[in-house]
Amino acid sequence: MERDHSKISMAVIRRLPKYRRYLEDLLNNDIHRISSNELSKLTGFTASQIRQDLNNFGGFGQQGYGYNVEALYEEISKILGTDHRFNVIIIGLGNMGHALANYENFKKRGFDIIGIFDIKPELIGTTVNNIKVMHMDELDEFVKNNRVDIGILSVPYGQTPAIADRLGRLGVKGLWNFSPMDLKLPYDIEIENVHLSDSLMVLGYKIDSKM
Amino acid sequence: MERDHSKISMAVIRRLPKYRRYLEDLLNNDIHRISSNELSKLTGFTASQIRQDLNNFGGFGQQGYGYNVEALYEEISKILGTDHRFNVIIIGLGNMGHALANYENFKKRGFDIIGIFDIKPELIGTTVNNIKVMHMDELDEFVKNNRVDIGILSVPYGQTPAIADRLGRLGVKGLWNFSPMDLKLPYDIEIENVHLSDSLMVLGYKIDSKM
Repeated sequence: MERDHSKISMAVIRRLPKYRRYLEDLLNNDIHRISSNELSKLTGFTASQIRQDLNNFGGFGQQGYGYNVEALYEEISKILGTDHRFNVIIIGLGNMGHALANYENFKKRGFDIIGIFDIKPELIGTTVNNIKVMHMDELDEFVKNNRVDIGILSVPYGQTPAIADRLGRLGVKGLWNFSPMDLKLPYDIEIENVHLSDSLMVLGYKIDSKM
Repeated sequence: MERDHSKISMAVIRRLPKYRRYLEDLLNNDIHRISSNELSKLTGFTASQIRQDLNNFGGFGQQGYGYNVEALYEEISKILGTDHRFNVIIIGLGNMGHALANYENFKKRGFDIIGIFDIKPELIGTTVNNIKVMHMDELDEFVKNNRVDIGILSVPYGQTPAIADRLGRLGVKGLWNFSPMDLKLPYDIEIENVHLSDSLMVLGYKIDSKM
């Protein structure tokens, strides 16, 4: 790989998708220059935080002239690897699995869902958003015959660790876990745990502190 | 309100739900003391970040002795307002709305879903997780007759701004928005925008940087 952004901290990396969304909006609105102060108003990050973040990778800012929106958008996209495509499978076609299978933004951001797995007989053989639903018994074979980068786990809480372990052993590189637990595995695999109620609690705090 | 945590930055507040989850796990495992180093291993935050965060509200840490897990858990819960209960309605009973209506953790964290609204005739009058599904035409009346703190928006992208505005005008205090847009309203209402693909992009980055 040619790029080396290994010195950028994960805290900065976690802010990049948000920058990227705003920059995309600006481009769609034909805005090509933006100051850190204007970016601050949009994103809610402080202007000094923004200057510090963007300095991490060359910056593209000029005093009194602002950032080149397009260059910044492209650099952030490159860092985030949106020029790469990832093959994704969904495990568990409950409501959350269904919602994720139909989520339009994934493909646009480089994530192709290539298979869905469940155990309910009535689901097997159907398609959701043109993606085939297969039985969990077919999982090992499928992962051996296809490059699977990421497994989305939307299965009941109790089943999550065992299925995560199975995917890890099959060589899947990353897990996106929707069970409300901080999943960890004893070997080298990337995991992002989604805790939906965390942001709901932050919302509750914000409401509370105004009362 | 007796408490004053207004000096705690939102960046710290956003980390509190994660601390709280880990502290809850520790209590469930009968662990009553923990050092910042051990907390660091669990949470992935650095020990110095943890000490700095927890110093914001009294700390409860003693050099060489660690934090009192229970006191810390209770203080964080108090800051986050989990002793309060919030009334929540869901707008839009698609797959995501369904998944959220069935999400077990909300009630445990202080959020009671008291109504669901949609426009599909076949859904009106049914219940999901014991919550009544009503027609959008009944929304104004319902909000006037019930205290509604938070509206969850799980409606199609294009409908989101108008429905958000309607809820805001009805006096709902906060919106939890699942449409992939950074919703803003021209008046005083708290909004948390959930961008699911942000954390998927971070996962993609983590996988990429190992290749």
